[in-house]
Amino acid sequence: MRIECIAIGSELLSTGRLDTNSVWITERLGRLGLSIHRKTAIGDDPEDLRTLFREAIHRSELVICTGGLGPTFDDLTKETWAEVFGAELVEDAQIREDILAFYAARERVPPESNFKQALVPVGASILRNPFGTAPAICWDSPRGYPGRRIILLPGVPLEMKQIWEGQVEALLAPHAKAAVHSLRMVVGSVPESALDERTRPMREQHGDLEWTILAGVSHVELVARGADLARLDAARKDFEQELGQDLVCVGEGSIESTVLGLLQARGETLGVAESVTGGFISTKLVSVPGASRALLGDAITYSAGAKTQLAGVPEELLLVHGTVSDATTRAMAEGIRAHLGATWGLATTGNAGPSEDGRGPGPVGTIHIALAGPDGTYSIRYSFPGFRSDIQSRAAAWALDFLRRRLI
Amino acid sequence: MRIECIAIGSELLSTGRLDTNSVWITERLGRLGLSIHRKTAIGDDPEDLRTLFREAIHRSELVICTGGLGPTFDDLTKETWAEVFGAELVEDAQIREDILAFYAARERVPPESNFKQALVPVGASILRNPFGTAPAICWDSPRGYPGRRIILLPGVPLEMKQIWEGQVEALLAPHAKAAVHSLRMVVGSVPESALDERTRPMREQHGDLEWTILAGVSHVELVARGADLARLDAARKDFEQELGQDLVCVGEGSIESTVLGLLQARGETLGVAESVTGGFISTKLVSVPGASRALLGDAITYSAGAKTQLAGVPEELLLVHGTVSDATTRAMAEGIRAHLGATWGLATTGNAGPSEDGRGPGPVGTIHIALAGPDGTYSIRYSFPGFRSDIQSRAAAWALDFLRRRLI
Repeated sequence: MRIECIAIGSELLSTGRLDTNSVWITERLGRLGLSIHRKTAIGDDPEDLRTLFREAIHRSELVICTGGLGPTFDDLTKETWAEVFGAELVEDAQIREDILAFYAARERVPPESNFKQALVPVGASILRNPFGTAPAICWDSPRGYPGRRIILLPGVPLEMKQIWEGQVEALLAPHAKAAVHSLRMVVGSVPESALDERTRPMREQHGDLEWTILAGVSHVELVARGADLARLDAARKDFEQELGQDLVCVGEGSIESTVLGLLQARGETLGVAESVTGGFISTKLVSVPGASRALLGDAITYSAGAKTQLAGVPEELLLVHGTVSDATTRAMAEGIRAHLGATWGLATTGNAGPSEDGRGPGPVGTIHIALAGPDGTYSIRYSFPGFRSDIQSRAAAWALDFLRRRLI
Repeated sequence: MRIECIAIGSELLSTGRLDTNSVWITERLGRLGLSIHRKTAIGDDPEDLRTLFREAIHRSELVICTGGLGPTFDDLTKETWAEVFGAELVEDAQIREDILAFYAARERVPPESNFKQALVPVGASILRNPFGTAPAICWDSPRGYPGRRIILLPGVPLEMKQIWEGQVEALLAPHAKAAVHSLRMVVGSVPESALDERTRPMREQHGDLEWTILAGVSHVELVARGADLARLDAARKDFEQELGQDLVCVGEGSIESTVLGLLQARGETLGVAESVTGGFISTKLVSVPGASRALLGDAITYSAGAKTQLAGVPEELLLVHGTVSDATTRAMAEGIRAHLGATWGLATTGNAGPSEDGRGPGPVGTIHIALAGPDGTYSIRYSFPGFRSDIQSRAAAWALDFLRRRLI
């Protein structure tokens, strides 16, 4: 079944909003073994809507729209589909009652414009909305398009999700297919192009699977899709051998969840001292529930004084080596480890640019990472391209991966 | 000029990724008075790409594509457009040299696959990529489509933005129109529905402007658009009066940049101690260049030990009041202020849920915020709905806004 998603609303073409509904819908379709082949965001212009709807019903068997079902003048989804199919709109008594009840429960009277939401195209069915006044619509085999289906959902995520779970899922169940399984492998501290080159022969060996490489700031993902679990499992084994230590985890998970899992399994703890990464290491770790079991604390030492006060770096050392240096980073890692009594101390310094006066400690992109542990202190230096937040986020990920490699 | 954006990559149709490039491009087009009428996300399937490209060049005068220019087998944007226009791809000597230089600077040799990026369709021009190996492409009046233009940009946001600012903007300048101006007002610590209700009469008074309310986790934005600067200015004055202290800033800016600006103007400094927000306050602040002038340091105290070690909370107090409490939060704020010698000490504790055993300190969503300053210590308690990361991010923003209200 060819499925496409359309998100409707001029705000989706402005700078403020992203269509997140389609991401949620994609995930739910995936559970039924269904996938979408295209998604579109479009404004409230009637002519643009008409053109898109005609294209969509032509190329897709199921068209799922979100948005444009509200009470205001620029909510045109239902009206435009009715026009495309030459169908009349008729008020539904049940929906009128629902709207009245919704307002009565809030001790208010609905504005007359709200009853626009009680209009339903002849031939379409209603999916009632337990959380709002805009009902959803399911329209099977509209005039001229036998076997096609359109589903119109409210744009408010909460309402959309409720209607999907309570009603849409049951409508789609008969179309559910043997799910396509996927194998996701997270790779740390390796650039995308190097990973592509290195894994090409093995991906060709497993050419019966569909492969994707996703490059992020923190890590690279290698994803395989296929219907046969045994074939995916064989690929997993080959890649585990090929990637070795560079493979962070398979399945859900990330560098941070892997590091926390390893620490917990070993009964070990972590203290962090961040300068250039300014809290990025910590926020990555605390995004994982239960992080507090291994992460004792993190000293974000933006000033030289804080490096001394919170991470115990001797003032003389700062004077001799400067705030961005291998020696200072190592002293921070050792200091925070001792200060918190942690098994491991992880630290970063560097220059993520830009300072307002164009000056700064060392070239922009320089990153020092140090790790103090039971068997001594290790450090490494990188040079990352990019803007401030990319450099900070990548440095945090590569620092955590530096710890992960030491833990395995 | 009819403009559309196309984001290419199967990951954009999965659950992992959102197309954020088009939002940035929309904002930049807006500065030139240009807007898009549609955006589409599509996978790497060659047949789907061919169909979409043919539709797009038919309906739009300018088609801006992002993604699919990388070195891997599933990067097909350039190849598919060349096929649509029946153009040959030829290797460009300059780009081959750029790729060699890019790798040489990193003391590496490019994999042979990288030179796929040096192929350019005959008739198209190159926009060189200072941060990566995939050049962008501008193709004017391709065969069969006189007066039309396509611009192909890398999907990596950093590279896309650099090429846009350095080269694309100049190409589009001749098409710039009288810009529609916008007035953006950032409101802190007020829920969206309350702001909607409260500002409705004044928005109706200024009904000649186009109004939008954008609710985020950190703040709510009230945006007005119009061609007449004097009308926008009149609205700004009325809303400044109406919103009072709740108005964080007008124009660019955020709670964090406003707080840092106020601190710098007053020559004051800040120390932070975060528990429940786990680094979110710090990463918000350090996203602003120059943050180090006011932010001395941040102690992320996930464990009770770190609350004592890094933020100087007496052990007895923790035993009596618990880690999530008003008293502990106040002690953290006072402790970090004294420890770093800062003008202000800001602290958070709370429970963002879920702990793996379903238990936790206090109900999920409970947040304590405390601020210690020259004239004493103030604290407040909130209860936020939502999931873990929303609660953490909102708590960080409302804590910074608590400080902002004290500074004005």
